Amino acid sequence: MLKIAIVGASGYTGLELIRILHCHPEVAVTCLTSEQSAGKRISEVFPTLRGRCDIVLENLEPVRVAEKADIIFTALPHKAAMEVVPTFLKLGKKVVDLSADYRLSDPAVYGEWYEPHLNPENLKKAVYGLPEIRRDRIKGAQLVANPGCYPTSIILALAPLLKNGLIDLSSIIADSASGVTGAGRSAKVDSLYCEVNEGYKAYGVGGAHRHTPEIEQELSLLAGEELKITFTPHLVPMDRGILSTVYATPEKTLDTATIAALYREFYDGESFVRVLPSGSLPSTAFVRGSNFCDIAPLVDSRTGRIIIVSAIDNLVKGASGQAIQNMNLLCGFPETTGLEGLALFP
Amino acid sequence: MLKIAIVGASGYTGLELIRILHCHPEVAVTCLTSEQSAGKRISEVFPTLRGRCDIVLENLEPVRVAEKADIIFTALPHKAAMEVVPTFLKLGKKVVDLSADYRLSDPAVYGEWYEPHLNPENLKKAVYGLPEIRRDRIKGAQLVANPGCYPTSIILALAPLLKNGLIDLSSIIADSASGVTGAGRSAKVDSLYCEVNEGYKAYGVGGAHRHTPEIEQELSLLAGEELKITFTPHLVPMDRGILSTVYATPEKTLDTATIAALYREFYDGESFVRVLPSGSLPSTAFVRGSNFCDIAPLVDSRTGRIIIVSAIDNLVKGASGQAIQNMNLLCGFPETTGLEGLALFP
Amino acid sequence: MLKIAIVGASGYTGLELIRILHCHPEVAVTCLTSEQSAGKRISEVFPTLRGRCDIVLENLEPVRVAEKADIIFTALPHKAAMEVVPTFLKLGKKVVDLSADYRLSDPAVYGEWYEPHLNPENLKKAVYGLPEIRRDRIKGAQLVANPGCYPTSIILALAPLLKNGLIDLSSIIADSASGVTGAGRSAKVDSLYCEVNEGYKAYGVGGAHRHTPEIEQELSLLAGEELKITFTPHLVPMDRGILSTVYATPEKTLDTATIAALYREFYDGESFVRVLPSGSLPSTAFVRGSNFCDIAPLVDSRTGRIIIVSAIDNLVKGASGQAIQNMNLLCGFPETTGLEGLALFP
Amino acid sequence: MLKIAIVGASGYTGLELIRILHCHPEVAVTCLTSEQSAGKRISEVFPTLRGRCDIVLENLEPVRVAEKADIIFTALPHKAAMEVVPTFLKLGKKVVDLSADYRLSDPAVYGEWYEPHLNPENLKKAVYGLPEIRRDRIKGAQLVANPGCYPTSIILALAPLLKNGLIDLSSIIADSASGVTGAGRSAKVDSLYCEVNEGYKAYGVGGAHRHTPEIEQELSLLAGEELKITFTPHLVPMDRGILSTVYATPEKTLDTATIAALYREFYDGESFVRVLPSGSLPSTAFVRGSNFCDIAPLVDSRTGRIIIVSAIDNLVKGASGQAIQNMNLLCGFPETTGLEGLALFP
Repeated sequence: MLKIAIVGASGYTGLELIRILHCHPEVAVTCLTSEQSAGKRISEVFPTLRGRCDIVLENLEPVRVAEKADIIFTALPHKAAMEVVPTFLKLGKKVVDLSADYRLSDPAVYGEWYEPHLNPENLKKAVYGLPEIRRDRIKGAQLVANPGCYPTSIILALAPLLKNGLIDLSSIIADSASGVTGAGRSAKVDSLYCEVNEGYKAYGVGGAHRHTPEIEQELSLLAGEELKITFTPHLVPMDRGILSTVYATPEKTLDTATIAALYREFYDGESFVRVLPSGSLPSTAFVRGSNFCDIAPLVDSRTGRIIIVSAIDNLVKGASGQAIQNMNLLCGFPETTGLEGLALFP
Repeated sequence: MLKIAIVGASGYTGLELIRILHCHPEVAVTCLTSEQSAGKRISEVFPTLRGRCDIVLENLEPVRVAEKADIIFTALPHKAAMEVVPTFLKLGKKVVDLSADYRLSDPAVYGEWYEPHLNPENLKKAVYGLPEIRRDRIKGAQLVANPGCYPTSIILALAPLLKNGLIDLSSIIADSASGVTGAGRSAKVDSLYCEVNEGYKAYGVGGAHRHTPEIEQELSLLAGEELKITFTPHLVPMDRGILSTVYATPEKTLDTATIAALYREFYDGESFVRVLPSGSLPSTAFVRGSNFCDIAPLVDSRTGRIIIVSAIDNLVKGASGQAIQNMNLLCGFPETTGLEGLALFP
Repeated sequence: MLKIAIVGASGYTGLELIRILHCHPEVAVTCLTSEQSAGKRISEVFPTLRGRCDIVLENLEPVRVAEKADIIFTALPHKAAMEVVPTFLKLGKKVVDLSADYRLSDPAVYGEWYEPHLNPENLKKAVYGLPEIRRDRIKGAQLVANPGCYPTSIILALAPLLKNGLIDLSSIIADSASGVTGAGRSAKVDSLYCEVNEGYKAYGVGGAHRHTPEIEQELSLLAGEELKITFTPHLVPMDRGILSTVYATPEKTLDTATIAALYREFYDGESFVRVLPSGSLPSTAFVRGSNFCDIAPLVDSRTGRIIIVSAIDNLVKGASGQAIQNMNLLCGFPETTGLEGLALFP
Repeated sequence: MLKIAIVGASGYTGLELIRILHCHPEVAVTCLTSEQSAGKRISEVFPTLRGRCDIVLENLEPVRVAEKADIIFTALPHKAAMEVVPTFLKLGKKVVDLSADYRLSDPAVYGEWYEPHLNPENLKKAVYGLPEIRRDRIKGAQLVANPGCYPTSIILALAPLLKNGLIDLSSIIADSASGVTGAGRSAKVDSLYCEVNEGYKAYGVGGAHRHTPEIEQELSLLAGEELKITFTPHLVPMDRGILSTVYATPEKTLDTATIAALYREFYDGESFVRVLPSGSLPSTAFVRGSNFCDIAPLVDSRTGRIIIVSAIDNLVKGASGQAIQNMNLLCGFPETTGLEGLALFP
């Protein structure tokens, strides 16, 4: 039984880690931290856990946390993560970081989009944790940079096309929409029920969203060449889910059957990517609570444009589920362990 | 590995049975029926299941179904259930019936609220499947009448008071509210998104709801005396959940601490009933997707009235989860097997 | 054209006053205050107003506000209102106060439920502004205490019974449910979208809600005798609306037809109370955005209990709409002026 | 006082016409038809109307309807409209048709996307009723083809660019999302609350949506040249609203300030189009219930792409509000009469 610490347990991704790990047969959660709620039981913060996980939240003292755990999940805001991860690594712990701090390989890019990087020396150690793209490197890693939610949905949507060099790299537009858990659990007027409910809006339009460089880094690696995209996130009045509708112009004329076959082959054997049968389209409702990424690739025969629609649960495949998938790889467990749960519908 | 058939698999309770049983280690679903969608894969009806459960739905031919299964869940509308359950019983199968057909022990009462009963001879065989009240009889049963969703929330809320003879039996008012899955999956204008969303309403006011006699039957048994209640259901714009706020006048003055202690003792050792600590109140959000019933009993010191608030997921503890809890009892599995999943929040 | 100031314009009731007054032919909004957003245009805070109301918000300096307006609406938290209302009154302005500060006639009761009252000398001046109950006194008032949202729905539901002495005064239970605008617009974790959505809960159970003394004061006046009630508020995942399901035991046996006739007579001629035809029940969806209170009175013939269901929009008849109805009375305008708008459905 | 008939009054656009016309000072609704609910009062179908509009619904007998009205709104499904409109025209009535039947000027295109056109001879008479683009022709028309909801949001988003020849005509992608009222009021499983709620999905991907030819027809007219677009609609779990995020590649490098100025000039003087100030983005929540179209045009400086975001209420500016705007033009009323109501928020 491996021991697990979750640093930053009182946010939504922290809770989701606890929820999924509760049914994982190979690990036990032994330590939870929260700056805001230290001293309280986690089940006072999240009454869903009552009677099943009543661990007392503690302050984040890295050495003490490391003593209690074999694997550490850092579910902290950016910057806060890189303040503690170095200690965990030094103490020989394996770390899955759910923040943005180790996702960008170039600290200068991080500096441009976030702030000066505090721990550039560990960036080389970090593996970008998208198992479908980089499974083997994850297996041997000590530090996994767990991907962002939008990036997961967009990279998986485009990987087969980019790997096969099929599209004009300047033509990519990713139009995405997220549920409100993506905004986190901090008290802001913009996230109030009555401000969000019954409204749909775009935000960060024009390349302002911080997931942009992460998406571009990974797409560029897949393409073997630098590329830029237009990425527009939207906010949907629902708790969970991201759906990305991605547009690209093919280098030469393609039809739906051809690219569908390509996707099926590319993701053959993957447990958590479902390339939908022709005529089916994804909905976030069909992946809610599960670790699936559903993908429908097709061609708009009227304009020749390729359209790929992908859907994930932003808290699962877009965060905590993927983090556990990465942990399974790190620890040599079967990749699906603890992640067999089906989506909750309705 | 026991084999399971789900009769009426294309409704929400059918889907919920499949979802929960998917992670149950002792059973395998081998047969699914649906009159409307026979010939389709269940995963075409519910894309959440794609790649995990792709069984082809068949027509309901009772003998053929019985050949394929050891245990049969009937998730049919009332009347349709009692048309097939006798065959299953005759063929020696164990049955958990999620309809209303075997819940009322007196066929005349059934006739009054529903229609003439077609299978009164099996009513005596049926055990009302509320494990917290009738665990031992369930264990030896062949036919379990799985309780209704409102009744589950109300009976569990009142059982400790009634068993202890603490309240005026003429004073009970149950004010309940349900999510929209309670209305089922049939296409009706009243259940359309835009008709339901952003509205809250009462329905069946004044003792018109068919769960009334079921609630009264069970409460009367607990009290040892016939009683009648006022029961008002409401519809909440959300998918899942029932919350009941139950009012009763005590026979003599009580305080919150006393009845809280009573509830804690009554439900001591129960895996799925959580009597909340003083100051906490249930929310349907905290049990969504789980088999818990959360209960807060208290006294309004200004009026002396007892108020008990209880919350369940209507599709889990109010239907499919409880059905599986009953199956576990029938089969001698630990009662919580397959039901350890925590609520999905948010 | 009378000039209107709205003090506390950046909350939901402030916005709702602006929305409704925008189509009122006899008045013009000339002054808006907001401590948090002073210096901004109101249309920056609420983009719905852009191009129609772009007034710059100012700090609350009572004398300056009074100079700009004939009528002042105070849409402030309790306590903040009674800090400025005396100045407005002294300067001869008419005031409709939407806070709780002038609703309770006894300052000791206010002190018990809120805090020490700062302006008891004006309590006698204040008229509780429920036009259907106290129209004539409102007409001559200088200060109207606009009723709370829950109280409006409950008092209108019970007034005909109490005025006619038909019920056991110790038997009243009011089980109410409100949309989330009732919690206001301040940034709290409890009001976040993901905390509220897909959940239904009770709060303030056992007589803890501050609307309790207000309801009891008014019901006692109607009954001609002190009474206490059990009042349980609930939170519904929707923006607007309050529905109250009120229970009472009749002094002698009554039937639905009799009390329906009584209600129809009592509210005959009222523009904003609709006693529904037999068989119809209210929904908050049917009054959203309108000033109506829909009421269905009936008898549960199985238990003899009276059940009255009432529905309002908490921001309109439960706050700003009623405040404008009161303003119309204060100013001698037809009572429905500016309030003719129909509910927005869906 | 002009007399108004609404043909097809029991759908959501019919109701919305009644709601808005209720406060229109120059007209009175005198006739409502509904095949499904003939004989019932409209207020039985939509209880929001109770006491304000209790007209009895009648069967659609065109001659009788025409006798009762000066202006006729046809709020029927496609095909049903063109079965009755010719009669109304022959009898000299003015007609605003909310269906698709008279929007496409080429009956062959209609035939390709819908079915054979039954009334091609009146197509030339019909004016596509987007006032901001074609105000003068609407004024003199007898038959106005009221635009579709998606087309309204997309055409207004692109008109300034196309009129000024600023974009590559092959580069247009319109990614739109609609609330559920767009699916109408018929009983379908796909529109049930629990199927729609908490999910976000694309549909009609790849040029399958019937609004495509309508959008292309109007954009081509604006551009002075045939063009094709990629149009992807999505479904959002909310009642009302359409937001379109439109992408286009400029012919030569542009910046946000330049195109913002262009849009401001183009829509200068328009009552219902709000070009947002720099830094602001539209939300459907800010136009709900109002006739506004909010537009934010900007340039993604990283890729050079133009992005225009527009938001409308699909039932108001996208249907019934625009129909009344057209009626005002037809009748010589001020264009904003009856449409001054502000959005309902929250």
